[in-house]
Amino acid sequence: MNLRPPAGAIAITGFMGTGKTTVARIVAERLGLEMVDTDELIEAEAGMSIPAIFAAHGEAHFRDLESAALAQALGRGRVVIGTGGGMLLRAANLEALRRAGPIICLTAGPDAILRRVGDDDSRPLLQVADPAGRIAELLAERRQAYAQADAHVDTTQLSPEQAADEVLRLLADDPRARWLTGARTTIPVALADARYEITVGCGVLDEVGALWPPREPGVRAALVTTDRIAPLLAERTTEALRAGGWEPHLLVVPDGEASKSLAVLGELYEGMAAAGLDRGGTVFALGGGVVGDLAGFAAATWMRGIDLVNLPTTLLAQVDSSIGGKTAIDLSGGKNLVGAFHQPVAVVSDVGTLATLPPAEMRSGLGEIIKHACCFDAEMFALLERRAGGTLADDTAALEYLVSRNCQIKAGIVEEDPHEQGVRAVLNYGHTVGHALERAAEGWSLRHGEVVGAGIVAESRLAAWLGVSDEETALRQERLVAAWGLPTSVSGIDEEAALAALARDKKIVSGRLRLPLVPEVGSFRIVEDVSIDLLRRAVRSVLAEGWRGDARR
Amino acid sequence: MNLRPPAGAIAITGFMGTGKTTVARIVAERLGLEMVDTDELIEAEAGMSIPAIFAAHGEAHFRDLESAALAQALGRGRVVIGTGGGMLLRAANLEALRRAGPIICLTAGPDAILRRVGDDDSRPLLQVADPAGRIAELLAERRQAYAQADAHVDTTQLSPEQAADEVLRLLADDPRARWLTGARTTIPVALADARYEITVGCGVLDEVGALWPPREPGVRAALVTTDRIAPLLAERTTEALRAGGWEPHLLVVPDGEASKSLAVLGELYEGMAAAGLDRGGTVFALGGGVVGDLAGFAAATWMRGIDLVNLPTTLLAQVDSSIGGKTAIDLSGGKNLVGAFHQPVAVVSDVGTLATLPPAEMRSGLGEIIKHACCFDAEMFALLERRAGGTLADDTAALEYLVSRNCQIKAGIVEEDPHEQGVRAVLNYGHTVGHALERAAEGWSLRHGEVVGAGIVAESRLAAWLGVSDEETALRQERLVAAWGLPTSVSGIDEEAALAALARDKKIVSGRLRLPLVPEVGSFRIVEDVSIDLLRRAVRSVLAEGWRGDARR
Repeated sequence: MNLRPPAGAIAITGFMGTGKTTVARIVAERLGLEMVDTDELIEAEAGMSIPAIFAAHGEAHFRDLESAALAQALGRGRVVIGTGGGMLLRAANLEALRRAGPIICLTAGPDAILRRVGDDDSRPLLQVADPAGRIAELLAERRQAYAQADAHVDTTQLSPEQAADEVLRLLADDPRARWLTGARTTIPVALADARYEITVGCGVLDEVGALWPPREPGVRAALVTTDRIAPLLAERTTEALRAGGWEPHLLVVPDGEASKSLAVLGELYEGMAAAGLDRGGTVFALGGGVVGDLAGFAAATWMRGIDLVNLPTTLLAQVDSSIGGKTAIDLSGGKNLVGAFHQPVAVVSDVGTLATLPPAEMRSGLGEIIKHACCFDAEMFALLERRAGGTLADDTAALEYLVSRNCQIKAGIVEEDPHEQGVRAVLNYGHTVGHALERAAEGWSLRHGEVVGAGIVAESRLAAWLGVSDEETALRQERLVAAWGLPTSVSGIDEEAALAALARDKKIVSGRLRLPLVPEVGSFRIVEDVSIDLLRRAVRSVLAEGWRGDARR
Repeated sequence: MNLRPPAGAIAITGFMGTGKTTVARIVAERLGLEMVDTDELIEAEAGMSIPAIFAAHGEAHFRDLESAALAQALGRGRVVIGTGGGMLLRAANLEALRRAGPIICLTAGPDAILRRVGDDDSRPLLQVADPAGRIAELLAERRQAYAQADAHVDTTQLSPEQAADEVLRLLADDPRARWLTGARTTIPVALADARYEITVGCGVLDEVGALWPPREPGVRAALVTTDRIAPLLAERTTEALRAGGWEPHLLVVPDGEASKSLAVLGELYEGMAAAGLDRGGTVFALGGGVVGDLAGFAAATWMRGIDLVNLPTTLLAQVDSSIGGKTAIDLSGGKNLVGAFHQPVAVVSDVGTLATLPPAEMRSGLGEIIKHACCFDAEMFALLERRAGGTLADDTAALEYLVSRNCQIKAGIVEEDPHEQGVRAVLNYGHTVGHALERAAEGWSLRHGEVVGAGIVAESRLAAWLGVSDEETALRQERLVAAWGLPTSVSGIDEEAALAALARDKKIVSGRLRLPLVPEVGSFRIVEDVSIDLLRRAVRSVLAEGWRGDARR
């Protein structure tokens, strides 16, 4: 199965004579999308004209055919649909269109409508003695249905081109239409010795070859991914690279953290040698944090460093690990012991690839998003509060916003402190406790972003105890962590093991610690000289019995 | 066997009453060296005073005892020797002192001598009726011997402190005394993102802990070396590190290129983990190019990069590979395929460690030295011509000069082009042909620096053919290569294999090549558009029968 960008549609609906077919055709052309007219589909399918269908089988039968045609149109991927004027009369049709994208309804005054369609005998509903009266009657009948549309454009005074302009203007302001209109967000990252762009959007994976083309056609590229992701995205990415002029070589490693080993790295190197990858080549890392770390390290060290493009496919990788240049592998003695700082030359984050992520993976990414919101962005925090309890996987507009905003935040911090020597410490909010829980949990049974949830809860309490924040600020953070399904406490972890892991934290000097804490939502302060005893109390508070202990998977 | 710094001595000699014992004691104190007085040694050994020895056994026996005492003094390492006044009378003594270091002879007018020693009844040679006449007689006898000294200081008008000042001034100007006086050459390297010093001298290895101390006492260091070098230098280096405050952990890898593998790297990582090396730790790479490449890469990648100090112990490493930040390991698919640029934080080049290098290793370093001389330094070229046919291993002064000068040259190039993207190409002089020969020679039977000799010969001919230089310039280079025992041609290499290796050179574009060539000794020019055919002819010219084919080992 190949994971394609999610289907979606811009629907142009409205009463007969409002110009919806013509306008839909112009809009589709401007956006480079296919245009599907449901009435045309019906006629082609039935092998007869719409008046003939009405005449032979009646309106009810036509409405059935119309619903079937809509389903067919929506199955075509990303399209602009010109609907029949009665499409919205059925609640199921309205629902299907809403899920697929924005619905724009064209309107016109009754006189204009009569003028435009009066002499058209292909309109079965107007084959009556008093067309004007019939139009008024039908308009009244359908008023409620048309009111369900997301936006309305009155075409009475407009040419079809002018009406299309207006539709495109509305679409540009509609976040749900951004990926249908080919819009994407570009976030520049400017470091002293590197400068690159993060491109966020739905379907941008298909443009990776154009976004990062080779210096000359036929240059070899290594596309590194895992055996879980390859069946979903390898073919599509390979095609996109080839379209850009690359000669891509697919190198597949086993899925999972165990691949961050010297042994798998060695196999990857052998694959790169066999692919004839030279100094002009590029490594494209397609996957989550494991692929980013492993393939990133391979790129950092291949012939003393070649170009790396990150194609993150998990929420955690898109909002966090794909930015900042940290690459690493694990040793038996510890995680990430061997690695390099190696900035990518480009990051392409296709939020469409998140559609099939398991909920636990989405939660893991949300841990870092909530962390960013706590420390940097009260507005994003409030948005996450409003959307609490919802799902994100199929909401590409929300994902594009969240990924873009979090990339901006992370990029800003990385720009200030590329080698993690100063302010980047703030990215550790929730992580001092989080890491201790992670280390104490045997066999990595907890996902990283999940323990960060409990870590944020613990550290927000610490801030309240220290008087750095008030109680309510801590509670707000806890409620948000809980609302997105992240653990606010963890059970099954040995208290002594967690406290021992905490004591091994390298940031502890003489029993005291510097910690980033959150005085109020959307801001942070580095608090010096936090006692290890208070930190222990914070850890214990998220291990206590009676707290939600749902972190074990 | 531990390889200690070579022994050596500053001899202070002169006639009785010139103040040599007192002055030697002051000089030794100022230099922090041990002072040995041969007369005191003789008395201690014999258990009787010198007048008593003269009385009981005569002068000839005393002279025997004096020679034995001298041998004992020279065995003590680095010392200042105050000699008896007659020490230089024996040619063997003079010879031994000369080999050990500079000889300074103190002089004084006969009146001053008489005044200073007239009432001293411990001077057996003056126990005569006419001491003044006896002094004149003895001075005349010894004039020739004293003339053999390297320098003379007239102490008639000087206090002992003033005389010592004058001796130290003379020593500061004497290159042979530099390492005895604790002098060393420091070459700063200033890159955009790194700044470090190369320290060159004899015995500087013993000061590595002071030259690069830990941030606080007890920080862990990894001392990486090979099983060939460890017995020679590990104990001494460990002691030096400990003296500086480090907690050194010795990590030994097998000697030879085969250690530049992912497998040995993995073992090294495990050793570093077991040693508890953290971000504040430092890797000290003690050895030749293999250790520098391997340990350097380990340092570059340990916890995303920790400090690296290079302690090169081969001439090639001291003049070339320890500077510039290139680290790498080999894969089965090729040499140096995996690596990183990682500048050291310090380089400590102890030329004393070169004493036991096999001649082939010395030659290998000389290949790069001659390359530098050809391209950058006509004066060094002329010096190498004058010293041609000599040996270097035991001439610490010459080695200090050569290593320092070549470090300066290499550092200058690296400063200009740290990532080998431009002018650093000039360092490839002799290497385009050299690498082709190296690749064609199965199983690396040729040392790198050796093929560079033949490469320089080939490329100097190419320059003459192109009219870039005259014939004599090419011949001068060939003579110098030959004079230092490097091959000017190689036998036993398959011509087709060499030409095929040449054709695979990545710098070749459409059958043409940019090459650094030498228009006249001490300068270079990047020549564009050299045809591959001419380059083939140059390769063939060093493969021809009849040329000195002594490169096979």
